[in-house]
Amino acid sequence: MKEQASRRRILRMGAVLSGGMLATKDAALAEGQLGTPLGPYGERSTYEKAVRWRRDTKTPETGSSFTPLADSVGTLTPSSLHYERHHAGIPNIDPAAHRLVIHGMVERPLSLSVAEIKRLPSVTRTLVLECGGNSGAEWAAQTAPDVQRSFGLVSCSEWTGVPLALLLAEAGARPGATWVIAEGADACRMERSIPMAKAMENILVAYGQNGEALRPAQGYPLRLIIPGWEGNTNVKWLHSLKVADQAYMARDETSKYTDLMPDGKARIFTYQMEAKSVITFPSGGQKLPGQGLYELTGLAWSGRGRIERVEITTDGGKIWVKADLQEPRLPIAFTRFRLPWRFDGREAVIASRAVDESGYVQPTREELIAVRGVNSNFHFNGSKKWRVRADGTVTNVEV
Amino acid sequence: MKEQASRRRILRMGAVLSGGMLATKDAALAEGQLGTPLGPYGERSTYEKAVRWRRDTKTPETGSSFTPLADSVGTLTPSSLHYERHHAGIPNIDPAAHRLVIHGMVERPLSLSVAEIKRLPSVTRTLVLECGGNSGAEWAAQTAPDVQRSFGLVSCSEWTGVPLALLLAEAGARPGATWVIAEGADACRMERSIPMAKAMENILVAYGQNGEALRPAQGYPLRLIIPGWEGNTNVKWLHSLKVADQAYMARDETSKYTDLMPDGKARIFTYQMEAKSVITFPSGGQKLPGQGLYELTGLAWSGRGRIERVEITTDGGKIWVKADLQEPRLPIAFTRFRLPWRFDGREAVIASRAVDESGYVQPTREELIAVRGVNSNFHFNGSKKWRVRADGTVTNVEV
Repeated sequence: MKEQASRRRILRMGAVLSGGMLATKDAALAEGQLGTPLGPYGERSTYEKAVRWRRDTKTPETGSSFTPLADSVGTLTPSSLHYERHHAGIPNIDPAAHRLVIHGMVERPLSLSVAEIKRLPSVTRTLVLECGGNSGAEWAAQTAPDVQRSFGLVSCSEWTGVPLALLLAEAGARPGATWVIAEGADACRMERSIPMAKAMENILVAYGQNGEALRPAQGYPLRLIIPGWEGNTNVKWLHSLKVADQAYMARDETSKYTDLMPDGKARIFTYQMEAKSVITFPSGGQKLPGQGLYELTGLAWSGRGRIERVEITTDGGKIWVKADLQEPRLPIAFTRFRLPWRFDGREAVIASRAVDESGYVQPTREELIAVRGVNSNFHFNGSKKWRVRADGTVTNVEV
Repeated sequence: MKEQASRRRILRMGAVLSGGMLATKDAALAEGQLGTPLGPYGERSTYEKAVRWRRDTKTPETGSSFTPLADSVGTLTPSSLHYERHHAGIPNIDPAAHRLVIHGMVERPLSLSVAEIKRLPSVTRTLVLECGGNSGAEWAAQTAPDVQRSFGLVSCSEWTGVPLALLLAEAGARPGATWVIAEGADACRMERSIPMAKAMENILVAYGQNGEALRPAQGYPLRLIIPGWEGNTNVKWLHSLKVADQAYMARDETSKYTDLMPDGKARIFTYQMEAKSVITFPSGGQKLPGQGLYELTGLAWSGRGRIERVEITTDGGKIWVKADLQEPRLPIAFTRFRLPWRFDGREAVIASRAVDESGYVQPTREELIAVRGVNSNFHFNGSKKWRVRADGTVTNVEV
């Protein structure tokens, strides 16, 4: 908290108190009505309505649902609002019946219960998960009208689990083993190929999310958490790790999650998510109630590490100003950025750009397209512009 | 993650895979049954049963409910499981009708809507909240059988809100103003007196918890968050801040939340929570399934800042060993500690003690009682012993 700044009088807003205003407007409260009892497992307020959004399809078990980023505060995503991307619905797995099998090119094939895994040395990390297809519609400027639908396939949780390296060491990879094929227990047995070097680096077999068990929609009871890699590789409902000497060219690493380049060739195994940011307030679909002081705010993240700097423009990209970054800035986690801004009733085009600790600068949409073309559906991380109109309404610039 | 340690073979557990074990035991999964659809606001697994515990009373609107610490993973508490302490139930407040009034000895009395407050410069901090009465039964050794009931009036969340100092600067305290009286909108209008110096230091008027709005049980739509101070001062459902030249000697700072000392005098306004820790696994009521390797784990925190060190004994206090601390260690937040431990089937008495960055060492129960006597119900922070019996059952040593 910046003590000096916080003591200056900056609001110059808020009604000055008049006589009757001390009394509450709420009749029940005014009467001192007793509230509801203590509860076993709490719910949110009935006045809070933010939900994940999904496009209506014939198969609601397959598809994506988007985190309501415009309603986010702080740097975490509530587990109930974490984005979803499922290929065959959410299985309801009994953890007492579930096992993780480690097999293939190993000295000691293992079959571990969830209870056995929970006994092992564990690690906790706050990490972003982002779908490789997040903001994919931005490639073709078929942009959604708000930040939830255009950028909402990204969320941030505190994950707890066992290092995959520990499990692999116990199984003992044989000479020549270079890949680990992870498979989920969902109906489609979603699978991805992970290079052994990454498997031995910093991957978690996670069972905890935000202080409790993983949610079913996030892979209960076990999932892979791969820091900085596209969401699809973080295999949910993990039940098999097969050690192999080659990638498996699975459906989700060949027909999908590849990047078709302008020359007609596709990049494959593009696991790494780059630096990205987006302004969440004000953002598309919102309306500023009038002129005056606001806090511009949004989220920045990078699959490569810490966010080093976020800059904001309010004039369409001519002048960029450094935003305040919420500490602690954790690697590969949401970093909340903020900047006070006075809306004077003139139209403004606002955008953010992030720089991570590797020095990578989030490109503009145009810079990104100059290199990658517009064939791809994946790995869009261009800067996002919103237009604040004179009447305070906020729209998507690309629409 | 400690790379070296994680590559050693330390498990020597887990069944070696035999032929049939690759197949899942779950019939629905084996058949590839489609899971449930994507959802708007997710729920936890139906197999997860951890809930807050409360003593049955005639008035379920008044009392405490305890966080299930034995089921906790990582360093956050899910909002649904955050401990509760209410004096007149949980009001269901419409944020559109709610106002925060700042009045009394101020130049410019203010009445602010929730929307107005959310426009202001905000801050996010991960902070422990602990009831001043947490583990109060330990004073008289009337200890509960498990860690939830003995130590569960403590939780840790990410809070977002506006610095109170900013609001007070806007209102403009008059000369001689030395206290701020915070009052909640619950039926009993719970109130506490806060010294002006603290009010100007680092208090938040919070509206966000763990990435979404505060839960009703945590003060929706507004509450005070006072880093490091006993929970009761973090007034929920905040609707009035009255600036004054004296404390108000309210019910909850005179008849309660004071410390009766051996000489019959009571300490009053003992806001500060000291360093504390407790082992959550293994802990009272649990049973180790057999000999072998386990990870001892628990939580440490201090109202004064960061946890510097946690030590664990497994022999009743003769030898103390440094535990691993999960990074990042945030000030006034839960710090998860862990230590691998091989249970060899001999009875063991285990305990933890925390040291914070101020150098304060968590005392034993005996050391604490030598200074404070046993008259108090509040501010117990003694080290907690669990007995692991030869058969693996874990009990409370004091029982």
